[in-house]
Amino acid sequence: MLMHVVNVNKDVLKANNEIAQSNRKLLIRNRVFTMNIMGAIGSGKTTLIEEAINALGDHYRIAVIAGDVVAEMDASRFERLGVRTVAANTGRECHLDARLVERSLADLDLKNIDILFIENVGNLICPVDYKLGERVRVVIVSVSEGDDTVMKHPMIFKSSDLAIVNKVDISEAVDADPAKMKADIKQLKPSIPVLLTSKNDRISIDRWIEYIESYIEE
Amino acid sequence: MLMHVVNVNKDVLKANNEIAQSNRKLLIRNRVFTMNIMGAIGSGKTTLIEEAINALGDHYRIAVIAGDVVAEMDASRFERLGVRTVAANTGRECHLDARLVERSLADLDLKNIDILFIENVGNLICPVDYKLGERVRVVIVSVSEGDDTVMKHPMIFKSSDLAIVNKVDISEAVDADPAKMKADIKQLKPSIPVLLTSKNDRISIDRWIEYIESYIEE
Ligand SMILES: Nc1nc2c(ncn2[C@@H]2O[C@H](COP(=O)(O)OP(=O)(O)OP(=O)(O)O)[C@@H](O)[C@H]2O)c(=O)[nH]1
Ligand SMILES: Nc1nc2c(ncn2[C@@H]2O[C@H](COP(=O)(O)OP(=O)(O)OP(=O)(O)O)[C@@H](O)[C@H]2O)c(=O)[nH]1
Ligand SMILES: [Mg+2]
Ligand SMILES: [Mg+2]
Ligand SMILES: [Zn+2]
Ligand SMILES: [Zn+2]
Repeated sequence: MLMHVVNVNKDVLKANNEIAQSNRKLLIRNRVFTMNIMGAIGSGKTTLIEEAINALGDHYRIAVIAGDVVAEMDASRFERLGVRTVAANTGRECHLDARLVERSLADLDLKNIDILFIENVGNLICPVDYKLGERVRVVIVSVSEGDDTVMKHPMIFKSSDLAIVNKVDISEAVDADPAKMKADIKQLKPSIPVLLTSKNDRISIDRWIEYIESYIEE
Repeated sequence: MLMHVVNVNKDVLKANNEIAQSNRKLLIRNRVFTMNIMGAIGSGKTTLIEEAINALGDHYRIAVIAGDVVAEMDASRFERLGVRTVAANTGRECHLDARLVERSLADLDLKNIDILFIENVGNLICPVDYKLGERVRVVIVSVSEGDDTVMKHPMIFKSSDLAIVNKVDISEAVDADPAKMKADIKQLKPSIPVLLTSKNDRISIDRWIEYIESYIEE
């Protein structure tokens, strides 16, 4: 029974990978730099994308695909900032897949986009397996999930290009040690850059923005 | 493609429901009161089960099935309290299913258990569809996920018997309004009891314990 499910998933993942490849080619052809923003529920994905839009919106043409199960709340937060936004509702699925992104891309004028943020569904498990066509994968956790969160979800850190530990301003209130979380991430994947951020600490947000720009300039 | 996945899920869910039914019968026959503790990543599931064990462990024989993707960290927290614990690792799945619970039950001496807590994987989406054989479903979110979390995940609140908004002690630090979250839950499901809790507020924890006892006395 469990094996049956696993077999099905393999086919599903293979089909997903093929669509992700074609998304990727389409994005490269149109010179759209694309980030898949994964992370825990409420860890600060929308907040950090909003900060990036505020900081980079004058220099780059930005669009967002906002993944959510049923709601369009994050999508309207992005629209309020004046960026082109597609609300991608997964229905019952706990992750975005390449097909849903393919459909969302069809709604975007890719020739006139420099940066595309894809906000994934809050989940540290399934998004690992579903490539979307992105250039860079970011994983965001916050101190308030507890400082054992990293070691409980090794795969997502191993599969990401950049890791962010957010809400460090409330570390004490939730008995969490952000330095331990950073060390855990580095142990899982020594090569990954790790940012400690707080929306209330401008310097930490600037560092996040610099990372995005450094990828674009590559 | 998307439809294919949905069809597969229907078969999987049907099979799951049948095993859940048989788990339920087994638990009733052995007079084990069982709670499925669902909730967001790091929302306080383990903490609230620990509090219940501390408060009820002298009067009831308690066991725990601790669901996690790969780690056994929560399981060892429960073992430290001296209760019988089964670590149920899902591998790549983002939720417990009835089959995994069936296997875990086989490792427990059900005749000598009064209360069984099943800690589900941190996820507000998939656990909704996978019944395990439980008597009572609890959903836990915390203020730190943001006070729009409820309306983003209506299904899990509609399918639960008790809802908890935890970490109300840090509401201000994360700009969240727990009263709004409670009102949202009541709007989704008027009949559901909603508890606002903080591990640092003894009275709120006592109310959670009283709820558990009231179910047992039914
Ligand atoms: N204290 C503090 N709160 C933060 C920080 N970043 C985000 N928050 C708060 O955390 C809550 C969730 O933030 P979001 O940006 O909506 O998180 P998200 O990951 O997009 O959430 P979902 O899309 O629902 O999974 C909101 O109430 C934010 O105000 C931070 O650095 N410090
Ligand atoms: N401030 C505050 N922190 C809390 C409260 N409840 C739990 N925490 C902290 O939140 C973090 C996560 O708590 P856990 O009980 O491990 O949460 P969980 O839902 O079991 O987490 P996972 O099993 O990893 O999904 C820990 O650091 C706890 O100390 C609370 O009421 N207030
Ligand atoms: Mg969001
Ligand atoms: Mg836990
Ligand atoms: Zn999934
Ligand atoms: Zn799932």
